[in-house]
Amino acid sequence: MRMSWNYEAPLRDMRFVLEHVLDAPAAWAQCPAHAELDLDTACAVLEQGARFARERLLPLNATGDRQGCRLQPDGGVRTPDGFRDAYEAFVAAAWPALAGPPRWGGQGLPLLLDGLVREMFDACNHAWNMYPDLLHGAVQTLAAHADDACRARYLPALVSGQWLAAMALTEPQAGSDLGLLRTRAQPQPDGSLRVRGSKIFISGGEHDLSENIVHLVLCRLPDAARGSRGLSLALVPKFLPDGSRNAMVCEGLEHKMGLQASATCAMRYDDAVGWLVGEPGRGLAAMFVMMNSARLHVALQGLGHAEMATQNALRYALERRQSRVAGARAAAGGATADPIARHAAMRHVLLGLQAQVEAGRVIAARAALALDLAEQHRDAAVRQAAQARAALLTPLLKAQLTRLGFDGASAALQVFGGYGYVREYGIEQSLRDARIAMIYEGTNEIQAIDLLQRKLLGDRGAALRALLQECLDEARACDGPQQARPFAEALRGQCDAAARALDALLALEHEPAATSALAQDVMEALWWLLCAWAFASSARAALGLHDGDARWRQAKLERMGYARDWLLPRASLHWQRITAGAALLPELPAAQ
Amino acid sequence: MRMSWNYEAPLRDMRFVLEHVLDAPAAWAQCPAHAELDLDTACAVLEQGARFARERLLPLNATGDRQGCRLQPDGGVRTPDGFRDAYEAFVAAAWPALAGPPRWGGQGLPLLLDGLVREMFDACNHAWNMYPDLLHGAVQTLAAHADDACRARYLPALVSGQWLAAMALTEPQAGSDLGLLRTRAQPQPDGSLRVRGSKIFISGGEHDLSENIVHLVLCRLPDAARGSRGLSLALVPKFLPDGSRNAMVCEGLEHKMGLQASATCAMRYDDAVGWLVGEPGRGLAAMFVMMNSARLHVALQGLGHAEMATQNALRYALERRQSRVAGARAAAGGATADPIARHAAMRHVLLGLQAQVEAGRVIAARAALALDLAEQHRDAAVRQAAQARAALLTPLLKAQLTRLGFDGASAALQVFGGYGYVREYGIEQSLRDARIAMIYEGTNEIQAIDLLQRKLLGDRGAALRALLQECLDEARACDGPQQARPFAEALRGQCDAAARALDALLALEHEPAATSALAQDVMEALWWLLCAWAFASSARAALGLHDGDARWRQAKLERMGYARDWLLPRASLHWQRITAGAALLPELPAAQ
Repeated sequence: MRMSWNYEAPLRDMRFVLEHVLDAPAAWAQCPAHAELDLDTACAVLEQGARFARERLLPLNATGDRQGCRLQPDGGVRTPDGFRDAYEAFVAAAWPALAGPPRWGGQGLPLLLDGLVREMFDACNHAWNMYPDLLHGAVQTLAAHADDACRARYLPALVSGQWLAAMALTEPQAGSDLGLLRTRAQPQPDGSLRVRGSKIFISGGEHDLSENIVHLVLCRLPDAARGSRGLSLALVPKFLPDGSRNAMVCEGLEHKMGLQASATCAMRYDDAVGWLVGEPGRGLAAMFVMMNSARLHVALQGLGHAEMATQNALRYALERRQSRVAGARAAAGGATADPIARHAAMRHVLLGLQAQVEAGRVIAARAALALDLAEQHRDAAVRQAAQARAALLTPLLKAQLTRLGFDGASAALQVFGGYGYVREYGIEQSLRDARIAMIYEGTNEIQAIDLLQRKLLGDRGAALRALLQECLDEARACDGPQQARPFAEALRGQCDAAARALDALLALEHEPAATSALAQDVMEALWWLLCAWAFASSARAALGLHDGDARWRQAKLERMGYARDWLLPRASLHWQRITAGAALLPELPAAQ
Repeated sequence: MRMSWNYEAPLRDMRFVLEHVLDAPAAWAQCPAHAELDLDTACAVLEQGARFARERLLPLNATGDRQGCRLQPDGGVRTPDGFRDAYEAFVAAAWPALAGPPRWGGQGLPLLLDGLVREMFDACNHAWNMYPDLLHGAVQTLAAHADDACRARYLPALVSGQWLAAMALTEPQAGSDLGLLRTRAQPQPDGSLRVRGSKIFISGGEHDLSENIVHLVLCRLPDAARGSRGLSLALVPKFLPDGSRNAMVCEGLEHKMGLQASATCAMRYDDAVGWLVGEPGRGLAAMFVMMNSARLHVALQGLGHAEMATQNALRYALERRQSRVAGARAAAGGATADPIARHAAMRHVLLGLQAQVEAGRVIAARAALALDLAEQHRDAAVRQAAQARAALLTPLLKAQLTRLGFDGASAALQVFGGYGYVREYGIEQSLRDARIAMIYEGTNEIQAIDLLQRKLLGDRGAALRALLQECLDEARACDGPQQARPFAEALRGQCDAAARALDALLALEHEPAATSALAQDVMEALWWLLCAWAFASSARAALGLHDGDARWRQAKLERMGYARDWLLPRASLHWQRITAGAALLPELPAAQ
């Protein structure tokens, strides 16, 4: 049986999240910039996005993987066939400008909407979507920190997608620890810089999709302090304003496990001309402005992979017949085998994936909405609280959804059996492509440290307590409908555990070795809290649907119930461990 | 920093397991066939195996992955450069005959020794080791079920490795459910068969390593019953005894995620000449004789991958410096970064991997020893108990060690950061190669069903109760040394939970839907019981070492303590769920 890899955009679930779980229109009404936006318009944008993803990006996914990127003798990079046409269509349809600032030509639509569109693009072609993925962050960084001349020169072409951007951070000796990087920038009398050094793992550092590529290069000015406080940010374009080629070259492409169609470049800057963005020595601060949205975008890559893997595995499992189900009656019509979707093991895999994808979508949408509110809400107190909420959710989403993307691809591969291991079925590419997202944009281990040190201990639990309050409100709302009560109970249990765990962590605050040993448990436990909230709010929202498809509503309730009963208990171990404090963590080199 | 992929055979740990954890020499003394074997001889064999793996197989691992197998215009399959030379050296050194029956030219050494050698070969080159991997099973099957003429003709060349074997089971519509297969065998007046049909996913169905390839083909005789009771087994050689080419052809090679150097063939048999092995309609029974050892071999592939990934990640983590450790004092000598092996997140990953690999080796060795005792012990009652023990451990090892191979490769890849995703570092190949072992030789879901239905409920818990008794003996032994007591307590806790869970499962015996929903929990929980036993017996054995390296002993104790405190608590959720009985498991198609 040959199944074709396909994509049905989860538009119904997306609308459900916007309308019934988040009530996004009510939030938009409080944001002057979005006050005119209504739900039908938003959903029309999603439908257009779904069509673009399916018609233009999906057909290039497998071919791009096979063909890969090729470094040309002249130092250029050739992307796979069709990538450039798709990119031109993408720009022509104004997708890059969707959430861009209106001042620079953007449409100024919410990041929430932009995020859901990204999920669909990533689901259909993660590698292709790498190229425009950094535009939003580059625009944010330049809009906030570049000088007027720089903004006027670069922002319109970046917002429209006419030019693309690259972030040049990593060096061979400096990965998670950017304080170790060595690229130098020498100020010139005319105010420009000459940038010299080598960078690796630069996604889209060179390619043939756009006429210019704007690099944001982390570097050191002369006499800069050691470590990360000595870093500055430089804008270094492939082509200079006078049209001449800048002194920067792609020295090689990485041969990777996956994401073959995304050019991962080793770049050399040979006294390339650049301009400072932001203050000298404040390069990391200039980039922090984009950190939350960039990490959310990576989370959405994971979500897209998980959705794609899940729906394809489900289609396969409903068609593929092997063996009779345990305890099934003698088959009518003499069928000797049932669809594997009816076997308990496959039901666990598929229900678990569906529920986690749906909860992940709710949590990612909450974070995107928080980013919108932080930017646009009319009330400064709401803006501030939303900023703290987005900051708290970001490392959780980045780490947990990228892991779901990879683990979900692997679980889905298992559903395909031996076919899953064969290239033409598509799922093995998902697994290979999804893996990198657990590493880049801050490894998932770095996210756990960020969550614990900055987002929990940094404000002594204030952001978490605000979130717990909202969860308890949801639990109270679930006390009403009888079918929602088990969700209320489960959510309250998570909240109680979280409150105890927070106290325990605060008591350990000055024992960094003890708390850092618990970072991964904190990450897991808080994620399950967020999931419990998503399960409860989704179930309650589904119960509130009185028109529409009763079967869809019932299935949503069953999936959320499955997740509550079979998945949520995984949280206990992590809460217990945090509350108990850390057990001994031996040193490793001694263990050789 | 460029680290080279390397292998240091875990000879010290293997000797520790043989000598101090299992006391294998005492067991061998009870087996007439092995009574002459002593520990030093056994360890000398392991050293030779380590040298062969490292010197002959490791250098071909990455090149084999890049080159892959190529289907030639004449239908032959060309293996990667060097594979054939390595195979000739392997045969010349008599490795295939290691555990082969002396009657047919084998050395008759224990499967325990053979298993440890396999772990090393798989660690260094899983793809290469696929070719000889099926020899042992084919030999067992033929020795037990073929007629005298067939045995005399085929066994000597298979035992010596002069010829290789292939198992032809899967068909496009028949994967986990072999009852659906359609390949036909027509008896001929001369007693031979004509075999007609198509098979897929046939590892080593065609290649250039040996002069003949002996296929064991599962097929149906005319008027065979439907389903798996209608299956027969046929021996179908590539070259017939008169030297002519049989009517069978490799129609294609699968393009896979990994294991590129292993030829995965689509085979067509066009009235190929074959001979029945075993009784008509008893094809599956003829193959069951090799099932336990074949599945143990797949488990050892996982263990080899996990060992390889762990030791390479550890070497990298001890060299790679990024950031200061949380809470570290200001660095002496002004170092600005510590080896990442000192960071808590990496310590968790690496200690967890080491402990799981070491426990997995103990459990696999217990199973291999049980297979030896089942075959060779002088006492029939011991043979019978050992057979039940091996049968119980087999599905656990197959599922859990193949998952450790894959998850371990992924965890190790994360240690390498961005470099892990790049081909030249080696770890991404481990991840790709390791994935298939979770699927073939019975998917891990099939193993969970086998464990629950046949190995636990099939004898109403007798084999598990015997195992629990032995675990309690170990716990009692751990009550002595003070440092061993926490292991005794942890092991007793697992035994208590297992006894309660067994009662709960037996009470559900006639509710197949409820028990099958718990199959994965049973798998996980029992695995942790086996790990707790391995942690305890390893710790106690280490405490008993009075000569030798005190640092090695201490590190072993710390790793086992880490595993007891940080890993073992994962078991609770699974035990609780089994004891509580199954929660509702919704149907899937309704969930669309």
